[in-house]
This record gives sequence, structure tokens and C-alpha cells, in this order.
Amino acid sequence: MPPLIKPPKLRPHATLGIVAPASPMKPDKLERGVRYLEKLGYRVELGDSVYERNGYLAGTDEQRANDLMRMFVRPDIDAIFCVRGGYGTPRLLNRLDYDLIRRYPKILVGYSDITALQLALFQSCGLITFTGPMVAVEMADEKLDPRTEEQFWRTLTGDPALPALFPLQEDGWQAKIDRDVRGPLLGGCLSLVSRVLGTPFAPSFEKAILLLEDVGEEPYRIDGYLAHLRNAGILQQIRGAVLGRFEDCEPKSDQPSLSLEQVLSEYFDPLEIPVIYRFDYGHGKIKHTLPIGLPVMMRREPLSLEFVEPAFADV
Amino acid sequence: MPPLIKPPKLRPHATLGIVAPASPMKPDKLERGVRYLEKLGYRVELGDSVYERNGYLAGTDEQRANDLMRMFVRPDIDAIFCVRGGYGTPRLLNRLDYDLIRRYPKILVGYSDITALQLALFQSCGLITFTGPMVAVEMADEKLDPRTEEQFWRTLTGDPALPALFPLQEDGWQAKIDRDVRGPLLGGCLSLVSRVLGTPFAPSFEKAILLLEDVGEEPYRIDGYLAHLRNAGILQQIRGAVLGRFEDCEPKSDQPSLSLEQVLSEYFDPLEIPVIYRFDYGHGKIKHTLPIGLPVMMRREPLSLEFVEPAFADV
Repeated sequence: MPPLIKPPKLRPHATLGIVAPASPMKPDKLERGVRYLEKLGYRVELGDSVYERNGYLAGTDEQRANDLMRMFVRPDIDAIFCVRGGYGTPRLLNRLDYDLIRRYPKILVGYSDITALQLALFQSCGLITFTGPMVAVEMADEKLDPRTEEQFWRTLTGDPALPALFPLQEDGWQAKIDRDVRGPLLGGCLSLVSRVLGTPFAPSFEKAILLLEDVGEEPYRIDGYLAHLRNAGILQQIRGAVLGRFEDCEPKSDQPSLSLEQVLSEYFDPLEIPVIYRFDYGHGKIKHTLPIGLPVMMRREPLSLEFVEPAFADV
Repeated sequence: MPPLIKPPKLRPHATLGIVAPASPMKPDKLERGVRYLEKLGYRVELGDSVYERNGYLAGTDEQRANDLMRMFVRPDIDAIFCVRGGYGTPRLLNRLDYDLIRRYPKILVGYSDITALQLALFQSCGLITFTGPMVAVEMADEKLDPRTEEQFWRTLTGDPALPALFPLQEDGWQAKIDRDVRGPLLGGCLSLVSRVLGTPFAPSFEKAILLLEDVGEEPYRIDGYLAHLRNAGILQQIRGAVLGRFEDCEPKSDQPSLSLEQVLSEYFDPLEIPVIYRFDYGHGKIKHTLPIGLPVMMRREPLSLEFVEPAFADV
């Protein structure tokens, strides 16, 4: 494990740097998200190439990597929010200056394709980053889920009254948990976790709490990614697993298939570790904001996920 | 690199063990493929669980792994042919007894999902295996491409008149090759290569000739797998690349996308190594049979891929 580096928490009227390290967004969505942030009293600075388009990429790799690096280094930027996922952050991992980032720890928020970047930032710098709503996705949605919204801002502003997470939804968590376990929370979007294994950007998952979700992947593909994690020894090393909502991951053809639930339980039930299924995290609207890399406790009684140390540096 | 283990070549009237290590097939297709093999004078023995069904898997992992192990060990079986790909061999890799397989080297034929098994057999045993037509796919097709068929049987029977491969199709290879290069031919279906990285079943690709194809993956997914190989250092280690036909890998939605050709050339053109694009290999009907793990030469003049040593043991 690298030594942890924690960013400063978000202050009122902070300046947010907005980057597009993956796919391009619709400009009107970005504008709605920016208005939302400004209404809350934040200043917003857009990355130079945030409106660029290059197929499914928001500009060239050089443009996207430079934007991200500049936001870390600029002294007037307090935190970095991503506009959306899609695809593209795996292409940037070998273009970032991790030594420099280590000197300018800042909040970084995203999920989905941003997972690759978050794992690389943890592995290379020990930086704690955050899964959470994105500017041209959830923040552009006038019906932003209020529970998601509240938990997001309370987390980023370091609200001391938020030590533990409980289910946000009525059809909430299904837990198989016979004891409390503790470890760094590592993972994100499963297909992206798979695609960093065997690279210098993959953290060790030893004694970790593994966090997983995905979207639009049929059960046989989820199975393939989990087989990858098992063959890599990861499933055998972890202390617990927190499995989010797998949106749109049911079989798409009429070919015979295992169900998503069968696949997940085939891989996780035999492990004899605590597992939470249907955790509020993933590509759906309702989601917890989670600090990637921070030690967390999976607690049996009351069933909860608890941050066991502050996510932020004392400044 | 593990020490190479070569199987004996296929003799007339040999007995072929048929296994289904991945997805189930349609029984009538298997029967057609078996009739084809019997007509050629081979004896055919079906694995015990070849007709099993378990969702997208042809039986449980235990059944499929046991079938495969038995075919390696049984003294009356001369070579092992797979019925089809689909999905499932990554689940078997940690269930095989590689020490035992090493003592019973046999021809194994398959492609697509079988790639994971072929890489594991090379990495764990040094066994040379073969990409080629499968029993319930190409061999079940009454219009089996005659060039594919001829090259397949000449290869497996060790025809000494077959030292080099040339384009099989009129719209054949596009080469960027300024010199001859030599190395073990390693790879197969790109998504499966990605899913063994970081596991004990991934061979070293240092100084290798990298073989890749895929099917039904949109450009952004091909991009993600290639980013994985580049982040893992593989693209920087290889001596040459042989890129097959990527069937049905064009964009499926009306979202902006890079084309498949753009993606491939973005990753391979900057490498300054010989590359053959549009090589006759992949999920299409027309394909060369290739020995996975065997040293091959990419030759500039005349443009060809040459086996530089026999694929078979002297017996």
C-alpha cells in the first residue's frame, strides 16, 4: 500500500476545475451542471479542452492529460470534478506526472471510466479520490436524487456528522455478513478494474474491501471480468466485498444464460467473507459518494459501511 | 519463456478427443462436424460432458475441466479439438493439472474464447497449441472454406511442404514492414488476452510476434483492450504484430466514434515494428491455422509468415 495522501476538504465558495478525461458531453448538459454548481456558491473553471471532440474521446490524449495536470497544479483550483465517463481515462495513465500530482493533492470526483484514473492515482500517489455524481450527468439532471445530493456534499465538505453509510433505497442492501471487517475501499467499475490488472497502475487488493459495479455488460462478460479477478488472485486476497447496482446487465439475447445474480453469487458466496449485494452505488441515479482508497469498516450491527478515519487532510 | 513442448503431429486414422471447454453448441452442428471428421478417416471420441448445458457454459467448471484433463491423459486420444468458443475457458485455468498435461503433450485446436486456455497452456507447460477451425463451427459448415481446410490439415499433419503462409484472400494483408523479424507467435482473441494479464496464466510477450483479432467489440472496446496491453508494457516489448480480421467491430450506435482502422493504427503505427494488418485469421470463415507459441518469422520479401522450426516433436 502506498502512504495515503488526503486532499483538503471542500470549503464554501471553493473553485472547482472541470475536466473531461474520457468521452465528450453534450454542451447543454455541461452548462446545466455548471449552473447547478454556481447556484451552490462555487466558482467553476472549465479545462481548456473540455469541449473538444475526437470520436468517442473529448480531445486528444495530450489535451485531456494536460487539462487534468493543469487542474492539479493551478493554485486557484481547489477540487477537480469530471464531466462524465464513457471511455478514455485508460489512455491517459502513462501520460500523467504522478510526482507532481502528489505535491498538489485535491479532491477528484467521478466514476465509471474514471475508475482507471482513480486506481492509478491511488497506486501511484496514494491519493484518496471520490466516486460521485458527475457534472454533465447527475448534476445536469433537474431531478438529481436528493439523498445522493445530500450525501455527496456532506462527504466532500467533511461533515463530521457522517461517519457511516446506510441503505438509501427501500429495496436496499442484501448482506451476507457474520463479522465486521476493515480495509481500504478499492475498486469501481468492474470492467475498468479488469483493464488495469497486470499494469503498474493496479493497486494491491490485499486485505482490501473490494467495490464493484458495472453497466451494460451481459452476465457472461461480468463472469469474464470476475474470472479475471479470481485468476489474478484478487478475490482470494480481499477481506470483504461491496457490490453495487449492475445496471442493464441482464442477458440481451435469447441464448441460454446464467443470470447476473447467479454469476455474482457463484464468485462471491464461496469466499466466506462479508459481502453486501445491491449497495447504492453504480450507474443509477441513487448512489453513495465513496472515498476510493480510504480504510472503511463493513459493520454487521447495524448493517453499515463506515469511514474509519477522515478522508481529508487537516489544513 | 518456458521450454517449448511440442505435440506429435496428426497421423492418418488418429483418434480425436472432442471437448467443450466454453459454451454449449447445437447438437446437430456437433454431429455434422463429427461426420466430417469421420469421413476423413479419423476416429472421434466425445468428452463425457460435451452435451451438458449450464447457461452459457457447457456444464459445470468441474465437468469441463475434467473432460479436458481426461483427453490429455487418455492413451487412446491423439489430439484434442474444441467444439466452439463462446465463453468459459477463463473459468477453467485454475482447475487444470499443468504438471500432468506437460507429460502428455497433444495437439489442441481452437480460437476465440479458447485463447485463454492456449495462453495458459503455453505459459504453464510451454505447450504449442493451434488456432484453427472448430468442430461445431467451421467443420459443421458444408461450405467450409477450401483454402482454410487445406492449410489446416497440412499444418496438423506436419506437411513438410508448408514452411510459409501467404495471403489467402484477394483483399489480403496490408503490411508495414521494413525488415524481417522473428519471435514466438503469441496472442489470439484480444479481449481474452486482456483478461489473462496480471494472472499466473499470462505468458511474457517480450520479443514476441503478437497475434490479435476479435469479434463483435466496438472500436472503443478494442481501444480499451489495446490501452490495457500498452499500459502493461506489452506493445513496447514485442518485435512485430500480426493483426487478423476484426469481424463486426465497427461502431454500433450513432454516437461519434473512431473507426476500427483508426484505433488499430493509433496503437500500432507509432511502434516502429513490422505490422501486418488484415491477416487471414479471426472469426471469419477464411483463416490460417497458426501454432501458438512457436517461433515464426515475419518476412518482408516475399511478404509472408514463416514457421522457423517444426511445430511437432519427432516421435
